Amino acid sequence: MTDTKPTIAVVLSGCGVYDGAEIHESTLTLLALDRQGAAYQCFAPDVEQAHVINHLSGEVSDESRNVLVESARIARGAIKDMKEFDAADFDAIIFPGGFGAAKNLCSFAFDGAECTVNDDVRAAVKAVHGAGKPIGALCIAPAMIARVLEGAVVTIGQDPDTAAAIQTMGGDHKTTTHGEIVIDEALRLVTSPCYMLDATISQIADGADNTVRTVLDMVKQDRKAA
Amino acid sequence: MTDTKPTIAVVLSGCGVYDGAEIHESTLTLLALDRQGAAYQCFAPDVEQAHVINHLSGEVSDESRNVLVESARIARGAIKDMKEFDAADFDAIIFPGGFGAAKNLCSFAFDGAECTVNDDVRAAVKAVHGAGKPIGALCIAPAMIARVLEGAVVTIGQDPDTAAAIQTMGGDHKTTTHGEIVIDEALRLVTSPCYMLDATISQIADGADNTVRTVLDMVKQDRKAA
Repeated sequence: MTDTKPTIAVVLSGCGVYDGAEIHESTLTLLALDRQGAAYQCFAPDVEQAHVINHLSGEVSDESRNVLVESARIARGAIKDMKEFDAADFDAIIFPGGFGAAKNLCSFAFDGAECTVNDDVRAAVKAVHGAGKPIGALCIAPAMIARVLEGAVVTIGQDPDTAAAIQTMGGDHKTTTHGEIVIDEALRLVTSPCYMLDATISQIADGADNTVRTVLDMVKQDRKAA
Repeated sequence: MTDTKPTIAVVLSGCGVYDGAEIHESTLTLLALDRQGAAYQCFAPDVEQAHVINHLSGEVSDESRNVLVESARIARGAIKDMKEFDAADFDAIIFPGGFGAAKNLCSFAFDGAECTVNDDVRAAVKAVHGAGKPIGALCIAPAMIARVLEGAVVTIGQDPDTAAAIQTMGGDHKTTTHGEIVIDEALRLVTSPCYMLDATISQIADGADNTVRTVLDMVKQDRKAA
């Protein structure tokens, strides 16, 4: 048992909904952690983005950008390479969404249920899970979790194709609406749909707040039990 | 007098604190507007960024990026060219900060008190002011306002060099700390220091909330008087 602040790792996947981490989900996760008394450290894999999307036109742009470098924009430079992540240093891990979670952290956006997951991201999820610590995931990020952890009970909202792919990967998808969370007590997962629904920014804040609150409640339970 | 939602223009200047709009300030301004019952429309000038900074290393990067295209990342694509802005369509205008406000909206970061201001940004500030409508500005953005509106009473927090430059431009700088705002009743300006101080993300949310609340209170007064 310890009186220090809970410390949570937040994994980003670039900077921008169409090719990286969703900016509102990421920012509002950090805000929820700070407001609820937790410290955080951002991480991202040091790999090239799957591609760059012009967020004004929606077209693929002829550029290459690095996931860690772009994620540093959201983290104001205070970010570490995913390779440096050690589960022993954190009480929990949270994955905001955005297409980056399905394009850069894994290949779900391209390969669906057959997707591969970035080695360091997979290792981080496995290590946190192996240590019995909670994992939070927003938007499309739960699909990546379902690929790594067999039998994950998660939500991505209401999209039937994504839900079907989660079932195919051996997971169990639960339908939800704005701000709702799904808790997998066995695997200690907390997931919320966020911008997988057509949402307002206040609804994203609700989803992030509820996810963070539930993850931090689990951390408190762990500390009491320790 | 009207019962429709107040509609506020939010002017972005890229995507990332060192070369664009500060992401937390921008996101938390949009959240505050939505939570407080206002609609918003994002704008940015369609110009090249002054430069691109690698936010991991802090070094200038050998790339060029467009302010409108990068700002679209924060706005999830829902953004318009500053040239399309018409003050008649909005109840107020708000400028989040980040170096982009001092590098892309004007040249304050390079030229200090002698800075030039982007023509469309200057025209927007003049038009909103000319219509007697309120203007909000966070972080370093008040320096740009002080260059456009003679005698502006503003805050950028506590930085002595920036405060001196504001005085040189004919403005009047007031020292503030976290979450505080300065109100210029004559020019109808509301400013808050945000990340011009070494702040937590919760303190940024406080600054954005207080700025938005005060701007929306002014809008309510205007509607009562109409």
